[in-house]
Amino acid sequence: MKGSLLYEGKAKKVYHVTNEPEQLILSYKNDATAFNGKKKDEFEGKGRLNNLITSRIFEYLQQQQLPSHFIKALNDTEQLVAKTTIIPLEVVVRNIAAGSITRRLGIEEKSDFTPPLVELFYKKDELDDPILNDQHALYLTDVNEEELESIKQKALQVNEHLKDLFKQVGLDLVDFKLEFGRLADGTIVLADEISPDTCRLWDKETGEKMDKDVFRESLGDLITVYENILQRLEENTCAK
Amino acid sequence: MKGSLLYEGKAKKVYHVTNEPEQLILSYKNDATAFNGKKKDEFEGKGRLNNLITSRIFEYLQQQQLPSHFIKALNDTEQLVAKTTIIPLEVVVRNIAAGSITRRLGIEEKSDFTPPLVELFYKKDELDDPILNDQHALYLTDVNEEELESIKQKALQVNEHLKDLFKQVGLDLVDFKLEFGRLADGTIVLADEISPDTCRLWDKETGEKMDKDVFRESLGDLITVYENILQRLEENTCAK
Repeated sequence: MKGSLLYEGKAKKVYHVTNEPEQLILSYKNDATAFNGKKKDEFEGKGRLNNLITSRIFEYLQQQQLPSHFIKALNDTEQLVAKTTIIPLEVVVRNIAAGSITRRLGIEEKSDFTPPLVELFYKKDELDDPILNDQHALYLTDVNEEELESIKQKALQVNEHLKDLFKQVGLDLVDFKLEFGRLADGTIVLADEISPDTCRLWDKETGEKMDKDVFRESLGDLITVYENILQRLEENTCAK
Repeated sequence: MKGSLLYEGKAKKVYHVTNEPEQLILSYKNDATAFNGKKKDEFEGKGRLNNLITSRIFEYLQQQQLPSHFIKALNDTEQLVAKTTIIPLEVVVRNIAAGSITRRLGIEEKSDFTPPLVELFYKKDELDDPILNDQHALYLTDVNEEELESIKQKALQVNEHLKDLFKQVGLDLVDFKLEFGRLADGTIVLADEISPDTCRLWDKETGEKMDKDVFRESLGDLITVYENILQRLEENTCAK
């Protein structure tokens, strides 16, 4: 069923699917990278955790009528998705100030963003993923004005649902990054992954960082933390 | 008439006006700075040229029903303006790709921007004037959504009029930076200066750079170039 390798990214490998030209298999790697690849390491079990967490989150979003490229988890490290052409935008939603924005704009960490802040970055490693305004995004991608507006609206809807989901398991959703892709018919859908690699999550009680910042800032054992996130999400689903 | 010094910036000194609390005197300095102050020099006569060029441009814009803080030139290096509180935004309009945007977004120099691109930067030396999207600008300044829209519309109107004006004197307006300020009654008006320090101007025939890039890139004698710009503008006004 798994066909040839189409593409290898920093966190995932992408494979064709035999006889299914409109589907792909995403295989999650154990690699962790930060600061645009300047910090790198490998963590046994990370691929499994991100695959299972992402699968659980995309399933949850589909239950909330928020479709994505996700079809189903195939095994511990792989998932089946609809084939899309990724739009080279990283769409970041911020509820609380943390990370790059505090340094870039001199905003104090933990400042509240109400309404949530949406930022667009150009997915372009060699330029260090520069931040964009709407006009830049229209100039640099094939997305039109209406589609860009719809992408931002979808990102805000995802935010509302994820805030809810994580609140149920005792976590504050600080910020996260989404990517969108175009299906064969041109429709734009949510794609890529949603995991502690792409979200900032803070424990509601202790304020502890429960995401890739553990790796970025060398705060502890990444696998224990990611395992804890998966467990919280699983317990929450079972309790329902 | 000239009162005490209120503020000294990189290119101008700002003075109170005796008995006129709602007016200020801008005194243009001979200093040239680039790369956020990392490159610095002084050019005898530069203050006069920027004062006279800015005065001429603001007069022209006022004839086109585009009001600004400008009241009148007082002498070679000073002008009388309405007192405003400067909004900490640099509003950049780009017709042709040049300078920072080519490096930041990997856009080829001389690429055409139709419609013109409007960029906002946070006027904050210690942060190196970071680029902003609309939501950042609303978060970081006291400007509301409607005012921000109006600022961008005014910047585009200024662009149309300046493109015309410079075309008449054989120059392409590549890009420029505007600042806006709030009058005592809250109204937002165009402020600061418009000069070869704040515009990129290319000779239509030779393609030669006729602006601060002459200083930034050490291309020749800045004063000769600025003198030429003033002369072209003066001849154009006289011919009418």
